Amino acid sequence: MTRTVYVNGEYLPEAEAKVSIFDRGFLFADGVYEVTSVLGGKLIDFAGHAKRLQRSLNELEIANPVTEDALLEIHRELVRLNGIEDGLIYLQITRGAADRDFVYPKDATPTIVLFTQAKPGLADSPLAKTGMKVISIEDQRWGRRDIKTVQLLYPSMGKMMAKAAGADDAWMVEDGHVTEGTSNNAYIVKGNAIITRHLGNEILHGITRAAVLRFAREAQMVVEERPFTVDEAKAADEAFITSASAFVMPVVVMDGQPIGTGQPGNVTARLREIYLDEMRKAAV
Amino acid sequence: MTRTVYVNGEYLPEAEAKVSIFDRGFLFADGVYEVTSVLGGKLIDFAGHAKRLQRSLNELEIANPVTEDALLEIHRELVRLNGIEDGLIYLQITRGAADRDFVYPKDATPTIVLFTQAKPGLADSPLAKTGMKVISIEDQRWGRRDIKTVQLLYPSMGKMMAKAAGADDAWMVEDGHVTEGTSNNAYIVKGNAIITRHLGNEILHGITRAAVLRFAREAQMVVEERPFTVDEAKAADEAFITSASAFVMPVVVMDGQPIGTGQPGNVTARLREIYLDEMRKAAV
Repeated sequence: MTRTVYVNGEYLPEAEAKVSIFDRGFLFADGVYEVTSVLGGKLIDFAGHAKRLQRSLNELEIANPVTEDALLEIHRELVRLNGIEDGLIYLQITRGAADRDFVYPKDATPTIVLFTQAKPGLADSPLAKTGMKVISIEDQRWGRRDIKTVQLLYPSMGKMMAKAAGADDAWMVEDGHVTEGTSNNAYIVKGNAIITRHLGNEILHGITRAAVLRFAREAQMVVEERPFTVDEAKAADEAFITSASAFVMPVVVMDGQPIGTGQPGNVTARLREIYLDEMRKAAV
Repeated sequence: MTRTVYVNGEYLPEAEAKVSIFDRGFLFADGVYEVTSVLGGKLIDFAGHAKRLQRSLNELEIANPVTEDALLEIHRELVRLNGIEDGLIYLQITRGAADRDFVYPKDATPTIVLFTQAKPGLADSPLAKTGMKVISIEDQRWGRRDIKTVQLLYPSMGKMMAKAAGADDAWMVEDGHVTEGTSNNAYIVKGNAIITRHLGNEILHGITRAAVLRFAREAQMVVEERPFTVDEAKAADEAFITSASAFVMPVVVMDGQPIGTGQPGNVTARLREIYLDEMRKAAV
């Protein structure tokens, strides 16, 4: 079956899904994106993604070409057309096509693109049982990581560095402190505290991060939102990441060194369970 | 007349020039570019751009889909097809289309796109007579500015900040020192010295920069390649920028304050004249 994707109002076979070479997403990385998980045919935290999308667009002064309701309908239609039980829906909005100029065009119509990725058993990843290995790398990204732009070359390079080192992902480090993973937020557990970097321009304001911290606090866990060092991470009892597609995923090795017991920890496992249970219940 | 552009081996009307929504240039800003000037129907410093293109591709491990000879032929054919006397040729190569994954795809074919922009009187810009106004802004770009990638959102934002402040461009500042302009290298003249930041990961290795510094040294001018501060710039005798499309362009105001006499300086004017004379002679 060929995928059906969505481009500027049309549902198309993926081979026909194209954008102009003058699209500013292609020429200037002048666009933003979201990735929403699908579990059991339903959308996980759609409202959270729609809200962050609007924030990213506002930061870049790009008009939103669709209402939240229309966006929800497109997501659902793509799930239906592609028979997605478990998987991801990728959404990208750019400033649109115009002759090339660093100055924003006055009259461009924003481009909107969505496509699905089937991921059978997305919530049953074997990595949740074994845990991930990460390496630490310098954070070389731009200064506005809170805007979810498609400037993803360095995260992509980071993933390749991890792969070359036999690891699953890289945690990025700035001024000695971990910012986040290449496409996820980073956490350590020490004693009874869950420690993760505070929000700011330095990290993505994870939708999954917000939900997980809320559930942790509701479960009377101690949450510290502050920067932590690579040494703190290596000396932690547990470590994990959160993202819309990985949910809560244990990290058991950093730079070749086991974290805690070198096995997924109990706090991580509990948070993953709570997150998946609650979000499945609230899925739309 | 509709423009004829080049996409992956085909010459097409611009309205038909498209790339897949799965192109990594669109999804990850995973691509590089060059802009070559055309004066009198001939290419300025084509060899310099071809060499830097190859370096950018090497840094990102993207295979070059064309030989230098083939690339030259495509440039010349686009000049001919579009009747370009003075203008620009934009070239972009991306890693190609593949289902979305941060990991580089093994089997993607690089995408190559070229288009022209007619700019009648490109070498006679009125700004060369009046000089440019710049503002200083924080340099928020990623750490590998020596690779000419399409991650151009911040330079684009910088150009908008300049416009909002009634200026022509922004000079970016990191740790108190000017790195470069949004799409050009930055210089000051103090006493008998031309001062511009040294090469490194912090700035683009300008093709025009290389040629201008060579001509300056040949003319027995003193060149200092070192970082300079915003205060040094404001206290300079002259300031200017270089780029493939602006050549050598005087800067006469920074943050609302005149530089030197507030008029284009003699060193700048002489370098512009030498550069244009020599490069026209060597054009292909």
